[in-house]
Amino acid sequence: MANTDATLQQDLDALDDLEMHLYAHRYATSGITSYGSTIDPPKATADRGRALAVLQQESQERLCDPAVSELLKRLEAHADELDADHAAQVRILARDRSILVDIPPAEQAKLVELTTEAEHVWRKAKAADDWASFEPYLDRVVDVMRHFSELRSPGADPYDAWLDYFEHGTNQQFYDTFFSQVKDCVVPLLAEVVACGRQPSRACIEGSFDRAAQWSLARDVAKLEGLDLGALWISSTEHPFTDGLTSNYVIITGHVHEDDVISNVYSILHEGGHGLYEQGVRASYNYTSLKGGTSSAMHEGQSRFFENYVGRSETFAAPLLEALRGRFPRQFAGVTPHELYLACNRVEPSLIRTEADELTYPLHIVIRYEIEQLLINGEATAADVPGLWADRYRSYLGIDVPTNTEGALQDTHWASGLLGYFPTYALGNAFGAQLLDAMVAAGVDFDGACASGDLAPVRDWLRTNIWQYGRAKDSDELIAGACGGPFDAGHYTRYLERKFRGIYGL
Amino acid sequence: MANTDATLQQDLDALDDLEMHLYAHRYATSGITSYGSTIDPPKATADRGRALAVLQQESQERLCDPAVSELLKRLEAHADELDADHAAQVRILARDRSILVDIPPAEQAKLVELTTEAEHVWRKAKAADDWASFEPYLDRVVDVMRHFSELRSPGADPYDAWLDYFEHGTNQQFYDTFFSQVKDCVVPLLAEVVACGRQPSRACIEGSFDRAAQWSLARDVAKLEGLDLGALWISSTEHPFTDGLTSNYVIITGHVHEDDVISNVYSILHEGGHGLYEQGVRASYNYTSLKGGTSSAMHEGQSRFFENYVGRSETFAAPLLEALRGRFPRQFAGVTPHELYLACNRVEPSLIRTEADELTYPLHIVIRYEIEQLLINGEATAADVPGLWADRYRSYLGIDVPTNTEGALQDTHWASGLLGYFPTYALGNAFGAQLLDAMVAAGVDFDGACASGDLAPVRDWLRTNIWQYGRAKDSDELIAGACGGPFDAGHYTRYLERKFRGIYGL
Repeated sequence: MANTDATLQQDLDALDDLEMHLYAHRYATSGITSYGSTIDPPKATADRGRALAVLQQESQERLCDPAVSELLKRLEAHADELDADHAAQVRILARDRSILVDIPPAEQAKLVELTTEAEHVWRKAKAADDWASFEPYLDRVVDVMRHFSELRSPGADPYDAWLDYFEHGTNQQFYDTFFSQVKDCVVPLLAEVVACGRQPSRACIEGSFDRAAQWSLARDVAKLEGLDLGALWISSTEHPFTDGLTSNYVIITGHVHEDDVISNVYSILHEGGHGLYEQGVRASYNYTSLKGGTSSAMHEGQSRFFENYVGRSETFAAPLLEALRGRFPRQFAGVTPHELYLACNRVEPSLIRTEADELTYPLHIVIRYEIEQLLINGEATAADVPGLWADRYRSYLGIDVPTNTEGALQDTHWASGLLGYFPTYALGNAFGAQLLDAMVAAGVDFDGACASGDLAPVRDWLRTNIWQYGRAKDSDELIAGACGGPFDAGHYTRYLERKFRGIYGL
Repeated sequence: MANTDATLQQDLDALDDLEMHLYAHRYATSGITSYGSTIDPPKATADRGRALAVLQQESQERLCDPAVSELLKRLEAHADELDADHAAQVRILARDRSILVDIPPAEQAKLVELTTEAEHVWRKAKAADDWASFEPYLDRVVDVMRHFSELRSPGADPYDAWLDYFEHGTNQQFYDTFFSQVKDCVVPLLAEVVACGRQPSRACIEGSFDRAAQWSLARDVAKLEGLDLGALWISSTEHPFTDGLTSNYVIITGHVHEDDVISNVYSILHEGGHGLYEQGVRASYNYTSLKGGTSSAMHEGQSRFFENYVGRSETFAAPLLEALRGRFPRQFAGVTPHELYLACNRVEPSLIRTEADELTYPLHIVIRYEIEQLLINGEATAADVPGLWADRYRSYLGIDVPTNTEGALQDTHWASGLLGYFPTYALGNAFGAQLLDAMVAAGVDFDGACASGDLAPVRDWLRTNIWQYGRAKDSDELIAGACGGPFDAGHYTRYLERKFRGIYGL
């Protein structure tokens, strides 16, 4: 079939037109979802859900139109004649499309129905510490996820398929290796920390802190981190999150506790890291499927980078203390940067993932990964989960799990059909450590930037090597390009060893 | 052509499906527009405009689809078999559609281009008091509006066509009668007020008022007015506005001035009146074209009802004073309700429409109406406007117009192609007075409700007679149903006479 320049141009115009419609729907649905949890009045919930469902359906129908399949195939066949951006768009759109078209709409609707019910049951089960009521729903979710995997990737290992779905290019072999390195490092290191019996004081960050002043501090911290405040909306929600409508419109939220000034500082640094990534994507990608971060793990890599590698570093403690003193001069008058550093880095094995410290956090993920693997591969059912959970918390973290509320019922992910998603959180942490080493090797004065509070060199390197590419490059390609080699968890484990042996004098 | 029940049902399903898509787009575009002026970061402007344009285009394309014309015709032919709501939907959708399809897209685009440029030129002209630079744009806008009228209603008087466009059922004959009644009442009454030389004191509402406390007061006032706070978001903007995404999600905004506590109270009462109307429409209309207020004038009728007929009444001064004392106890300690009533009702001929008092306000509208009429009917060009403006401000309001900035350049409406819109503001005021008399005649204890601060009987009557119907009934039908007869401006002029003769002892 001959494809003249004229028909190629027509196809490119059709591609641009498709992208513009998908952009408008993305802008609307991201906005509606974000405002939903921040400013919408309580009674708006059902109407919002109805509008969202229609807009999402329209967007899916447009992408799933058989004519789009033909269009993408014709463009793929002429990939060498396309500019790099259009070639990447074709690749990403074809991938986004294949995820949707392989599942018949009726089956998709059934999963939505099941997870809606499962989330409802989970919420009540968590409140009542009642695993038994949630148990059948988890088994049903696992069944549907196996079935979807078979529809999408017939014959493939279902957990591999879902891991790849949530983080392109990963599978069990990849994560088995990664998590065994993590366990080999963290489990014995944590045992040493606990055994040593020393614990830094948190006294310097304890007290009562005016809420309005904490929100002023939040803006100071966002500015210190280097977010573009002209392209940012900061708001308050129960659970902090980030969304990027475009690189020019990023929403981050925090949550202020009157008795804990540090909690929201790290929420802002974390969400701000996500926000920097979204703001740092090439502006020309805003109207295309290349907009936004490339994956969950790479996004978490950026948020954890600013929360932990920058925010909990010894060098950054000086500008951070200055920011705290700016809003709470009395409370922080006698505090030294080193005291602040220690107070923000206390290690304590605990039951709740979202409250875990930097060292124990990955163990919470390892446990979820290992249980998901058994569930999806049919080696365990939901009835086995509380026992598996208790065994692992005992052997990895050294603690007992008194209730399922503080155990396998603590997270909503499984009720929502997100099995295979947890591992990306831990992978993001490890990406961050490797990026840090690569940045320093490339000549960035990381410690100097943190100490001075001027993080521009750090942001510039990340923007150049990661952020600007949006979804045009997958994580593995970005890591290879930025770090000169494939992913290597050694950067992460060496960082943890160095940092926490230092703090605990081990 | 035989139309079986089965094909009628198919057509109704198609109608519901169309409405659901239009609903989702309305929800998204109303939201995007409202958030735009309240919380969006400055750099988001262009991206927001781009998304909005695409979503609006999608919505228009869906409604203008020739298949929809056929669908609506088939349903109109079977109107007697439809339930009342579906029959109203068909009527309103056909009207909305005809407004769009009669103007070719290229001509629509030209008007958008012209008004975008005209608004830009107007902004600069207003700042520089430079009528000459805006003059050619106004002539061009008038030409395009004449042309559009010819496309929509060939052979019709163009100003009649535009008046009907902005307020269904009105024309010059209607407004000529209305405005001559207004002038006959207000011009001599105002002259008497000015001549009497008495002026109530504003001392009791002057001072400095903490902004945060004023926002708390705004919520108190919204509650006092009877807005459902569970279906309301209150925010701050330069120019207050109201939008209703659905009856369950209404946005009102205010603007706080540190040296003027009353300004935002009346902004909230005014926007809150719009908000009550939006919240009061039948919930089942949310997902249809019957959602929201029926017209600009009827909307203004509700906002002015709560701003003026309730909010500036002598009886409501007591609960209003109590609300003011709740947040500013020291400032309002020695004030009496009567002093507050007088302070909020001072009459002063002035140059700026948006700052005008209740008595002089309609004269600002009359002047714009008379000049629009001359322009569209070709009896004047833009070059004549400053002279026409000065003559009329002198003869109706008794004041000189020192600059065009404070004269014909003060409002953005003409630059935006909104000739024919101003009259709806004045008509709304007059609707309110007629509704008030009807309500009292029907047995509502209006003065008692205002005096007690419990406005439920007032809201219930308006909800029953006006609000619940949304767009299912036009203004004239609503007035006839609620008041037992056609529109009669006498209610309005008698109200003005009574109230201001009382205040000024005339």
